[in-house]
Amino acid sequence: MVDVNAASAKAAAERYGAKASADVDAVLADPEVQGVFICTSTDTHVELILKAARRKLPIFCEKPIDLDLAKVDACLEEVSRSGVPLVLGFNRRFDPNFRALREAVRRGEAGEVEIVKITSRDPAPPPVSYIRTSGGIFRDMMIHDLDMARFLLGEEPVEVFATGSCLVNPEIAEAGDIDTAMVILKTRRGALCHIDNSRRAAYGYDQRIEVFGSKGMLQAANPTPTTVTRYTSEAVLSDKPYHFFLDRYPEAYRAELEHFLEVSTGGVAPLVTGRDGRAALVLADAALQSLKLGKPVPIAL
Amino acid sequence: MVDVNAASAKAAAERYGAKASADVDAVLADPEVQGVFICTSTDTHVELILKAARRKLPIFCEKPIDLDLAKVDACLEEVSRSGVPLVLGFNRRFDPNFRALREAVRRGEAGEVEIVKITSRDPAPPPVSYIRTSGGIFRDMMIHDLDMARFLLGEEPVEVFATGSCLVNPEIAEAGDIDTAMVILKTRRGALCHIDNSRRAAYGYDQRIEVFGSKGMLQAANPTPTTVTRYTSEAVLSDKPYHFFLDRYPEAYRAELEHFLEVSTGGVAPLVTGRDGRAALVLADAALQSLKLGKPVPIAL
Amino acid sequence: MVDVNAASAKAAAERYGAKASADVDAVLADPEVQGVFICTSTDTHVELILKAARRKLPIFCEKPIDLDLAKVDACLEEVSRSGVPLVLGFNRRFDPNFRALREAVRRGEAGEVEIVKITSRDPAPPPVSYIRTSGGIFRDMMIHDLDMARFLLGEEPVEVFATGSCLVNPEIAEAGDIDTAMVILKTRRGALCHIDNSRRAAYGYDQRIEVFGSKGMLQAANPTPTTVTRYTSEAVLSDKPYHFFLDRYPEAYRAELEHFLEVSTGGVAPLVTGRDGRAALVLADAALQSLKLGKPVPIAL
Amino acid sequence: MVDVNAASAKAAAERYGAKASADVDAVLADPEVQGVFICTSTDTHVELILKAARRKLPIFCEKPIDLDLAKVDACLEEVSRSGVPLVLGFNRRFDPNFRALREAVRRGEAGEVEIVKITSRDPAPPPVSYIRTSGGIFRDMMIHDLDMARFLLGEEPVEVFATGSCLVNPEIAEAGDIDTAMVILKTRRGALCHIDNSRRAAYGYDQRIEVFGSKGMLQAANPTPTTVTRYTSEAVLSDKPYHFFLDRYPEAYRAELEHFLEVSTGGVAPLVTGRDGRAALVLADAALQSLKLGKPVPIAL
Repeated sequence: MVDVNAASAKAAAERYGAKASADVDAVLADPEVQGVFICTSTDTHVELILKAARRKLPIFCEKPIDLDLAKVDACLEEVSRSGVPLVLGFNRRFDPNFRALREAVRRGEAGEVEIVKITSRDPAPPPVSYIRTSGGIFRDMMIHDLDMARFLLGEEPVEVFATGSCLVNPEIAEAGDIDTAMVILKTRRGALCHIDNSRRAAYGYDQRIEVFGSKGMLQAANPTPTTVTRYTSEAVLSDKPYHFFLDRYPEAYRAELEHFLEVSTGGVAPLVTGRDGRAALVLADAALQSLKLGKPVPIAL
Repeated sequence: MVDVNAASAKAAAERYGAKASADVDAVLADPEVQGVFICTSTDTHVELILKAARRKLPIFCEKPIDLDLAKVDACLEEVSRSGVPLVLGFNRRFDPNFRALREAVRRGEAGEVEIVKITSRDPAPPPVSYIRTSGGIFRDMMIHDLDMARFLLGEEPVEVFATGSCLVNPEIAEAGDIDTAMVILKTRRGALCHIDNSRRAAYGYDQRIEVFGSKGMLQAANPTPTTVTRYTSEAVLSDKPYHFFLDRYPEAYRAELEHFLEVSTGGVAPLVTGRDGRAALVLADAALQSLKLGKPVPIAL
Repeated sequence: MVDVNAASAKAAAERYGAKASADVDAVLADPEVQGVFICTSTDTHVELILKAARRKLPIFCEKPIDLDLAKVDACLEEVSRSGVPLVLGFNRRFDPNFRALREAVRRGEAGEVEIVKITSRDPAPPPVSYIRTSGGIFRDMMIHDLDMARFLLGEEPVEVFATGSCLVNPEIAEAGDIDTAMVILKTRRGALCHIDNSRRAAYGYDQRIEVFGSKGMLQAANPTPTTVTRYTSEAVLSDKPYHFFLDRYPEAYRAELEHFLEVSTGGVAPLVTGRDGRAALVLADAALQSLKLGKPVPIAL
Repeated sequence: MVDVNAASAKAAAERYGAKASADVDAVLADPEVQGVFICTSTDTHVELILKAARRKLPIFCEKPIDLDLAKVDACLEEVSRSGVPLVLGFNRRFDPNFRALREAVRRGEAGEVEIVKITSRDPAPPPVSYIRTSGGIFRDMMIHDLDMARFLLGEEPVEVFATGSCLVNPEIAEAGDIDTAMVILKTRRGALCHIDNSRRAAYGYDQRIEVFGSKGMLQAANPTPTTVTRYTSEAVLSDKPYHFFLDRYPEAYRAELEHFLEVSTGGVAPLVTGRDGRAALVLADAALQSLKLGKPVPIAL
């Protein structure tokens, strides 16, 4: 358990019966270590991935690999040569609802996919200081939805149009970003995918997906903490969605972790690869370019 | 259009382009009259039914025919001899939701019916003066649910157990009635039907039915005025059920009326007969007897 | 009752106790006529509107007024000078669900409107022959949604981006149209509205709206024929949406008709004006232009 | 980890890093043991409870304590004298939905409780051999619902009426039991509680509760594996309820276990006591008596 904050490392290590350390290199050299979780800030990902790859250790890394595509490509090239498996942390692919949605799509229950609609709204904006270094809404937030679009569309997007506004907090505009965004992706075959993002939803974390096709429609709704409904003299009230990602996605995090264990110890192939991470970043960059140019932008994946 | 209140008769007649009158006999003797709607207080039903039957006029009558079973039997006997069709006003049989439920039961979608559950709650109690003459909760309110039980069970109940309390308004107890009731019916084959009634539901008119059987379950939920849902920082809010029967059952009243037109002019057989009215009254009387005796009572239909 | 098909005119007139005629001018000159419903093919609207306006008769006209904006402007100019009220047939504004949605938006229940999402899909495409003369998907189908966007956004769009594909029937592409479309509208303040259209939905007529704002979210879902749910060994099944507009919008048509009666006889101001019809056409034309240019287009209303 | 099946004990012990043993007394004498989970067949509960109580070990015991009330009383008497805490395994009290329901009832969101309705149906009947020794449907199945009734009613029932049939499998009747049951409980104040049970539900494990009172209604619906809905040309399909209790109640089991840890190590008072176990058994016995007598039976708790 390595943390730049030694106290955090110690507390976490004690809780899980692990050893705490502040020395990454020493830990990676420890022969007992059989795999590496990289859950640090984005700018440290590439360096840590490469250290682990050189030690031939299977790697789990939170998205994104890096905000610079050239660095990502160089990193993935070296990981590829090293032969170690790399699982990227697009946690939503492991959510039971979205996984069931994807499986239904794969089974052809919607027929040929024609329209995908992804709603993704956070309960409240992050600190503006975070936005200044995050790469902006497309790269820190919508990147999950862009990955989900690829997960569900069944073919790569070839064009993206992005637009947006700063409606939630004017300081976000001052930091050069928007807080309300819409994107349309188009595939070669002509399937369309719409994504809308907001940095603030009064009712909590809103993560819904709709897939429409030649045979019908599939929807994954927000799960809720309980199934309790209240009938009053005013209205019928039910639960709000979960508040944020830690509440919404516990099964996804568990499944993601178990998947990495299977990858690192059982020879299972990663379900989310470095290439998936790269592709989502390419889409996010293209969306940002489209926003700046005010017109659709072609995508080369 | 006959009304003991001449002004009401006049107003209604003007609205619908009909003739107003205070003289029932004259109206029934009018050769233009082709059928009769009896929508008066219960104690006048038998007399009016017989007058119409003697004139050979098809009859629609609001339930119940009478609170006295002997009078009902004598009346139905004479109607039967007259050969005129009689449609009884159990409006809920014409509700699109309950009708679809019954059709699904008939098609065997629940398999063999084993459990029926009927929820029926009014938004607010009637005046205590009404309760004093209505025959009580079983005969003025649950009678609809008892008819619905027969409509759905597919065979006649052979036993009833009734219990209840006065929880809404103590004046109802003083008038000799209860305001909160539960009844269990049992058929010869052993199917069970539960009915619960309350004279007051804070959230409106609550009319739901569940049919459970060997192959699954069918439910008819409360419809609502709109499909609008509101997500706020407090909760997710949707519409309450409709307020009361006039709001809830307009399609049922329309279909009931159209059915009577088909019966009176087209030779169609009544979907709700005098026998159905009698049977529901027998069940209501048995429920009342069970409540008084504090034990189940056999039913002879 | 005027119809170019004399038999149709006769049948309809008989059904409603009206007089049938094939001579529009004679009917308009009839002093008993107090208002005019124009429910003919689009290319006849302007001529009929002007005839009625010259007779000083209140006008109800199905949308669109015309596909040529210059003709629309000239027509509305003359109607305006005539002083007769003109109600345009955007029936969905009268739907109880969308009306309740709009009222909730007006009361501020969503706060400041930031995102509107309109889903609008037909059960099956019209004949290709119709598409050849209809003006295409934006002018014959999405025009309803563009009007709904204006109805809900609370301010005019200033920019539109449209994209789409032909995925349902290749003959539609041969006719120069698309059958699957997405549009994003943006208002001056930066609110965003997304519309998606498909000419074919396997599950019926799909008409949903979502309004998201600073205080929460409002959704209007598809109503269904019944509230019956079936629990089987395979799944839980509920009703599909209504099949098409005549099934989905009967209350809307009734309310629209009643509104026109109030306008024509009671001095009530039209809720949907000629200007609304013009504005929706401008938006549809701009969407078509955006599709052709492959980039967003500014809107001048 | 003690199991009469040594292989099972060994396997479970290995999985959780515990020690396996076939000798209960030796294990209870082990000073490292700080509490006891009794998850054995009902006829062994009393003996094991007493052994643990004599060792002053906190006890978790699956329901019921015993089928013989006199033995239960003697056992609880000794446990009480021993001073060790005893938590009884009514797992549903720890289900997040039912717990939230109870908390809402406690906060008065339904007002004064007037009607409680509990639906509880298993996916398939147990082997008839089990039914022969289980004590029958009231004591092995409805006992959970009877406990839930006490959990929600806020006062003790004073009367019970039970009825039922054998509709699922005639061998159950031959074993002297029924498979379809309805019970009505009544409290001193007059609140009514209805419970229905079936040994077989084609659509899975059906566990729902409704609480109706002076201020409104609260409902806890069945949770489902996913939130995915499928719109097809036939119907709208959503998930069935979970298949059975292990799928439905994992959070409940987890919370129950954590509660026992708090009780045994943290001095927290048991949320479900031996007295609760006794009371549910008294209700089950009274229901059985009512079924046999064919009339309501008073309850003395």
